[in-house]
Amino acid sequence: MSELRKDPVTGRWVIISTERRKRPSDFHLESVEIAADPGCPFCEGHEQMTPPELLAHRHNGSGPNVPGWSLRVVPNQFPVLRVEGTLDRQGEGLFDKMNGIGAHEVIVESPRHEDTLATMGDAAVEELFWAARERVRDLKRDHRFRYIIIFKNHGTAAGSSLDHSHSQLIALPIVPREVRDKVDGAKAHYLAKERCVFCDILRQETGEGRRLIADNADMVGVSPYAPRFPFETWILPRRHQSHFEDAARHEYASLARLLADILRRMNKALCNPPYNLLIHSAPVSESTADYYHWHVEIIPKLTKVAGFEWATGFYVNPTSPEEAATVLRDARGYH
Amino acid sequence: MSELRKDPVTGRWVIISTERRKRPSDFHLESVEIAADPGCPFCEGHEQMTPPELLAHRHNGSGPNVPGWSLRVVPNQFPVLRVEGTLDRQGEGLFDKMNGIGAHEVIVESPRHEDTLATMGDAAVEELFWAARERVRDLKRDHRFRYIIIFKNHGTAAGSSLDHSHSQLIALPIVPREVRDKVDGAKAHYLAKERCVFCDILRQETGEGRRLIADNADMVGVSPYAPRFPFETWILPRRHQSHFEDAARHEYASLARLLADILRRMNKALCNPPYNLLIHSAPVSESTADYYHWHVEIIPKLTKVAGFEWATGFYVNPTSPEEAATVLRDARGYH
Repeated sequence: MSELRKDPVTGRWVIISTERRKRPSDFHLESVEIAADPGCPFCEGHEQMTPPELLAHRHNGSGPNVPGWSLRVVPNQFPVLRVEGTLDRQGEGLFDKMNGIGAHEVIVESPRHEDTLATMGDAAVEELFWAARERVRDLKRDHRFRYIIIFKNHGTAAGSSLDHSHSQLIALPIVPREVRDKVDGAKAHYLAKERCVFCDILRQETGEGRRLIADNADMVGVSPYAPRFPFETWILPRRHQSHFEDAARHEYASLARLLADILRRMNKALCNPPYNLLIHSAPVSESTADYYHWHVEIIPKLTKVAGFEWATGFYVNPTSPEEAATVLRDARGYH
Repeated sequence: MSELRKDPVTGRWVIISTERRKRPSDFHLESVEIAADPGCPFCEGHEQMTPPELLAHRHNGSGPNVPGWSLRVVPNQFPVLRVEGTLDRQGEGLFDKMNGIGAHEVIVESPRHEDTLATMGDAAVEELFWAARERVRDLKRDHRFRYIIIFKNHGTAAGSSLDHSHSQLIALPIVPREVRDKVDGAKAHYLAKERCVFCDILRQETGEGRRLIADNADMVGVSPYAPRFPFETWILPRRHQSHFEDAARHEYASLARLLADILRRMNKALCNPPYNLLIHSAPVSESTADYYHWHVEIIPKLTKVAGFEWATGFYVNPTSPEEAATVLRDARGYH
């Protein structure tokens, strides 16, 4: 029989469907293939094809916007929001709007076109987190911004328009609703119990082990109890901390190691799936220190049956998290 | 410059992106093609391939589960929830679950494989609403159910697994989050202003006309002010009423006429797009009479860039509702 399960943070119910149960081999798996692209704007030597860089990691003393980098951050060429201007809030009868002030940046994760987070090596993955941290710390000094989203779309089916490995960062003048719900849910739990809900989740998951995928000294990878999507995976830092950008050096190293490991497990078990990766952090200016706990979410894109769930917020998941965790535990990746 | 707009019901902000502006011809349009299927379980003559019917419209006095019907309602062969059993709520440490009690039914809208809502004729579309009304009225007598969703997936890209035109109905022991947010938002508006927010929207949209697509005596079709998706369309009844199943005879007739008209406009302007259709009604047992207002939502599936929006609740829409309304106003369909 199917089960309804409640997400302990947001309170959202999902259906874990046994009637429609799916194992990895039941999905119409779409593998990500990186096509060669001589005109790729993110490849080394093509620095002039992007707007001037905001940040680069260079190890050979080379100047800006020339080869010699291991990671580059550039403004998005087609930004959804722009930095220039004054934030202007207006009414339109019943309705509310504001102009599109914000920032939209791209983190190019490697000079090599064919690299992926699963294969580029743990040190290169760690560089991504250091760059994200530096950009967030810079952008949060701008008081127009209320939230900074760091995310990655891997593969066309996950919304990526360029194959070359990159992440994105968007600074917003509002806190998006999904974040608001997480923060409010975590706050309600804290007010009721004086404990962080994510710390409670960590305690139960590491104790029980049924949904545990892999872990190390600082980080724990789990299939969440009430996942919306098959093989949805969370990585939580063991130490309580509300903001991603305040993590310690060894935590970024541990996160890079565990993330690359989990992505290799997914590649093995799910045939190099497209995925979305998100860093969930507290809103930049809120003192949510006691009740929010930053974490990473990885959602492989395995199902196309999305329109309805998308529109209603009512999710049917054909793979239980216990089964997903078993599959990923058993799928030790190779490098 | 891009604009952030707030949905007046849920409070969700979306970005209307001018940098990434898309007109109908800019989408990689995927047309729905109905493939012949000699083994289709929904075709007339194949009644034995479905579970026994719960309801059928028959005009020639034929018995159940044989040819002679114009519409049939049957249980879903692979239900996400089942009617049998007692609703059992349990804790699992920190977590909450319940068993999958509910109902999942299929409304087969025509005996003919090639029919669509846009082409089958207004009277046949009206039959769909009468059948949905009858099934909702029957199911709401079961006090385990808190919400009944009526929806349609048209085309594979919208999540449909069978081409033969059909809608679905799911009765749930919980109120899904997206519905909860709409109801709570409408209630907050009512408490602040003593007016229904949807009546306010109707007043502003019919007065201004910029986002108006088409209307008739009982129904108004608009592009909403802060749509998450390009060409998202709402049909609102002019008369305030919280529950779809309490509408009047002439309202179902008007809804059928306007819905078929709008679907033909979409077919013309957007090349027979896949779409999701949802009926938003108040929770079955809540006396939300004053502040909720039932309505229909149509979301053509034009963009694949979904993973990120899906996961963050942060939507970027490349087509403004004013532009979408202009395109659909100009696209008078043919029958």
